[in-house]
Amino acid sequence: MPGYHVELDAVLRALADPTRRAVVERLARSPAVVSELAAPFTMALPSLLQHLRVLEDAGLVTSQKHGRVRTASLRPGALDVLHLWLGEQQAPA
Amino acid sequence: MPGYHVELDAVLRALADPTRRAVVERLARSPAVVSELAAPFTMALPSLLQHLRVLEDAGLVTSQKHGRVRTASLRPGALDVLHLWLGEQQAPA
Repeated sequence: MPGYHVELDAVLRALADPTRRAVVERLARSPAVVSELAAPFTMALPSLLQHLRVLEDAGLVTSQKHGRVRTASLRPGALDVLHLWLGEQQAPA
Repeated sequence: MPGYHVELDAVLRALADPTRRAVVERLARSPAVVSELAAPFTMALPSLLQHLRVLEDAGLVTSQKHGRVRTASLRPGALDVLHLWLGEQQAPA
């Protein structure tokens, strides 16, 4: 399953950064306006947008712009690939 | 929990490489002699040893040398930190 492993590479790399993980943790609760997402981080908005881009490229996050407001959401099933891989590693009893 | 997040960073970075993931998949079945581990990969042993070192530094794998033979094992509970984080991201129903 090459596609599965390429997806896993991207998901794991995207999540291996504490800021991006914090964004995923926030979006797991509900969608959020991007300017709100930036608030807890001592980080300029362009840096946050770069992190969001990595999360979007990995298929973890989607975002939509309405007027001047961009709202980000966790993609439904975003973490399924990771659940699947972890499930496969259960040591036989 | 800074320690938890540092551990997660290391685990996710270590797993974001398909060779290292394949080593973890193999060791999830049983411990293996390092020379056996290298066999499925078109990779020189020193490269595999570097990957093993990353997995050991992330706390995922341990290895022991008996005479000239080094055996690697998946550390018990190695993936717990990832299970825990994933569990925390379950969207509220």
